[in-house]
Amino acid sequence: MTTPIEKLREYGYELPSPKAPVATYIPVARTGNVIYISGQISSSDAGVSVGKLGDTMNVVQGANAAELAAVNFLSQIAHSAGLDLEKVRILKLTIFVNSTADFAEHHLVANGASDLIVAVLGDNGKHSRSAIGMAALPLGAAVEIEGIVEALD
Amino acid sequence: MTTPIEKLREYGYELPSPKAPVATYIPVARTGNVIYISGQISSSDAGVSVGKLGDTMNVVQGANAAELAAVNFLSQIAHSAGLDLEKVRILKLTIFVNSTADFAEHHLVANGASDLIVAVLGDNGKHSRSAIGMAALPLGAAVEIEGIVEALD
Amino acid sequence: MTTPIEKLREYGYELPSPKAPVATYIPVARTGNVIYISGQISSSDAGVSVGKLGDTMNVVQGANAAELAAVNFLSQIAHSAGLDLEKVRILKLTIFVNSTADFAEHHLVANGASDLIVAVLGDNGKHSRSAIGMAALPLGAAVEIEGIVEALD
Repeated sequence: MTTPIEKLREYGYELPSPKAPVATYIPVARTGNVIYISGQISSSDAGVSVGKLGDTMNVVQGANAAELAAVNFLSQIAHSAGLDLEKVRILKLTIFVNSTADFAEHHLVANGASDLIVAVLGDNGKHSRSAIGMAALPLGAAVEIEGIVEALD
Repeated sequence: MTTPIEKLREYGYELPSPKAPVATYIPVARTGNVIYISGQISSSDAGVSVGKLGDTMNVVQGANAAELAAVNFLSQIAHSAGLDLEKVRILKLTIFVNSTADFAEHHLVANGASDLIVAVLGDNGKHSRSAIGMAALPLGAAVEIEGIVEALD
Repeated sequence: MTTPIEKLREYGYELPSPKAPVATYIPVARTGNVIYISGQISSSDAGVSVGKLGDTMNVVQGANAAELAAVNFLSQIAHSAGLDLEKVRILKLTIFVNSTADFAEHHLVANGASDLIVAVLGDNGKHSRSAIGMAALPLGAAVEIEGIVEALD
């Protein structure tokens, strides 16, 4: 059996240290078995993946940025919520895509995140989802992802 | 007693087959009695209702588009979640309205969806809500609706 | 012990009467101990705090608008949900910031709301959060806040 961490490596990612919130909010909040994960932007050790779909970034670049945000999302589950990635189910993702007013392929950008999470978590990664176009995002990020996760016993 | 399906017909709608996700995500995810419904865009058999409020669409047209998205939302509850529309309560709707930067009547557009859902489901349809203005939406849709539903026993 | 109401006063705010929804939706919906709060815009007795970050409003003005939306959010918890502010925990806030396409400091605007809520509610106010940039908001509001709250006890 390949573990989620190993599957993530097949995609070329190491699970990073979680990003610390830069304010009074917290990265995750839990009630019962339901955990709310704060918005995670597209960033890596190389810095923020800045861009606007329909202008400075194409769909492939956007999907790569969505992957980065998804990796940060998984990091918060593992590190901040302290959950084993083999014992969580993804209930809902909201994928915020920084886009121009006439861009129309937010769903294809969002697939970068959805595909990675399902590849890494298997059936437990299958989630409900919204993909929507934002006027702008913090730090100019191309993608931000928030979500709701269920802890499995 | 008029059923939800019959009330929907009074508004001129047949409950459509649910739209299949075009990616690895799923239309609905359930934990306990709470069901998360993926974002449903304004579309019908005639295609996607494309438009931007404040530019190519007025409030009445936008409210009609919101109705279409609401009908697709109800379809996911009935078909994908397999729930009887008489045995669900709508907890929360987020109504994403594709708009220009100076449009300010997103709430009136959103009422197209809220009014339809309350008319069809009665008191169980009364929901908390946010209505917000998006830079753009997938496929150029005028409206997208996501939500959280409670299964009643 | 200072109460939440007293702490709010230290910030210069009286808990206002809750804003009535102007449509068929309801201000709050509860299932079990989880309460969904409808989107609250930046407004006070003086009217709606209208503005767009990156154009007609700077970060300090935006953070003040976020405070107003947060006060309305607390009002809905106390009045519409009928909960004692000493017996609630804030699980999640989504902070919608009305912004231009090149504004990039939504998180600093959102801190106006996050800081106020943590100051008023203490540890119970510590929440997960997303801060995102909207094309526009209802009535031209600078900020809108929705959220999920847990009733303690």
